[in-house]
Amino acid sequence: MTLGAIEAGGTKIICATGNLQGEITQRSRIDTLTPQQSIPQVLAFFDEHKVDAIGIGTFGPADCNENSETYGRITTTPKPGWRDYNLRSAIADHLKVPVAFDTDVNAAVYGEYLWGAAQGLSSAVYVTVGTGVGAGAIVGGTILKGLSHPEMGHMLVRRHPDDHYEGFCPFHKDCVEGMIAGPAIAARAAKAGDEIADSDPLWNYFSYYLAQMLYSIALVVMPERFIIGGGVMARAHLFSSIRAKFLELSAGYMQFDRVLRQTDSYIVAPALGGDAGIKGALGLAIRMLQKTR
Amino acid sequence: MTLGAIEAGGTKIICATGNLQGEITQRSRIDTLTPQQSIPQVLAFFDEHKVDAIGIGTFGPADCNENSETYGRITTTPKPGWRDYNLRSAIADHLKVPVAFDTDVNAAVYGEYLWGAAQGLSSAVYVTVGTGVGAGAIVGGTILKGLSHPEMGHMLVRRHPDDHYEGFCPFHKDCVEGMIAGPAIAARAAKAGDEIADSDPLWNYFSYYLAQMLYSIALVVMPERFIIGGGVMARAHLFSSIRAKFLELSAGYMQFDRVLRQTDSYIVAPALGGDAGIKGALGLAIRMLQKTR
Repeated sequence: MTLGAIEAGGTKIICATGNLQGEITQRSRIDTLTPQQSIPQVLAFFDEHKVDAIGIGTFGPADCNENSETYGRITTTPKPGWRDYNLRSAIADHLKVPVAFDTDVNAAVYGEYLWGAAQGLSSAVYVTVGTGVGAGAIVGGTILKGLSHPEMGHMLVRRHPDDHYEGFCPFHKDCVEGMIAGPAIAARAAKAGDEIADSDPLWNYFSYYLAQMLYSIALVVMPERFIIGGGVMARAHLFSSIRAKFLELSAGYMQFDRVLRQTDSYIVAPALGGDAGIKGALGLAIRMLQKTR
Repeated sequence: MTLGAIEAGGTKIICATGNLQGEITQRSRIDTLTPQQSIPQVLAFFDEHKVDAIGIGTFGPADCNENSETYGRITTTPKPGWRDYNLRSAIADHLKVPVAFDTDVNAAVYGEYLWGAAQGLSSAVYVTVGTGVGAGAIVGGTILKGLSHPEMGHMLVRRHPDDHYEGFCPFHKDCVEGMIAGPAIAARAAKAGDEIADSDPLWNYFSYYLAQMLYSIALVVMPERFIIGGGVMARAHLFSSIRAKFLELSAGYMQFDRVLRQTDSYIVAPALGGDAGIKGALGLAIRMLQKTR
């Protein structure tokens, strides 16, 4: 049994094959250009490496509702050629295998749940901070989804009194994404990300807003663990400052106190590192096969 | 088949019997005093009206995790005698029938899901505003629960620039509960609730904060419908103002636009009125029987 996985991101598409244990056996990186340019390369990869089912974790927004008429489509993206493009059909119609379709962050939380930092738990939230802020949740072993996939990155936060950056979100300006994603860091620092010192006060704002987002999510989902990924989280000092601010926000209220004071394992880095998404997509393929059998 | 239901609130405990269609056949109201004073009356009701299973929807915080050692306990309440009281055991040990145990708001959302405003949907959120603010959610037909039940009433909100009320939440001061629950309305108005005119500016603050709470929840859960209950929501004008503010917050982002612009059925009153909780508790009893069969 060989499984396929696709992680479709804004700049690259990772194609992989793997096994039931979540081990990647083959891997290829394709640039994200238009679908007409990129998808033939994806199909060529899987023509060469035959698989029994494929899981897709994609950038969004996307229609991940299996009962929807437009299931499998990328929806309102500004990326040229991708708007209303049915990524799932493009793969399934050509390769004639079952294809599971979900967001990149839902795939990532599922990967961490199966083989990573949330293994053995029944609930967890994965948040990634990159050019945007995205999040996916597992509750009772199931990927959380209502009318559509969550959009937690647009959660509203309280502005830090000393922070005068206006926020870059085209919809909300200063939602959490507008205040902490890549462009917000770049705009405040006016230098390249890796030239910003750990002591720069902007990291204080960063933790301040991210902790607010986590706290609001916690009050709704009450996850057993938060996993925070994305390039910027390579700065290890951010974890302790986010944990401290989360604890401050909870103000002695409830269980957060208990879980956070006793251990730093409540807000952690992905155990699968950058592979959470692609391994999660592999997991979606496995789940798909189990369902269709 | 006769089912039993208990809705335990801060001032009263409702005991009821009903059938598989969610119809209440007997009902009794008991004052919430200490457990030693109130629980014997609850047991007497069910000694007289025999049932095959009981569902409890209780005030919180409570341990609703079936796998927990302290499952069935009221936890950190200030109510005399109730702290760490195992309400579920008190009922189950005496009556020797299966007893399901959840929060009042989880029961309410379940009632609305089975027989009310969320019938036929697979996701919904029920919010109640009374002496506190509570909320429960259904996702994929299941009551949302992680480490414990949600505590959405303590969500942090952005302060309205003209509102100088400090908030009464002992933990967070100006979280949504601290800004809009009964004591906050009373403190701002300095008169009895039913003497406050619909035109009073405090309702503007009320909708402003409640819409923020709904918007944050929406970004996480993406429910197909919000149901808002509690005494204060008898003021029908609040619904249109909450809908308008929710739409404003979404700022053209995503599906909320579509669902809210096309219809007022996205944010609605409970179809079961004040019976959402007790009927939901009945539903919990039915589900419990189905599980144990």
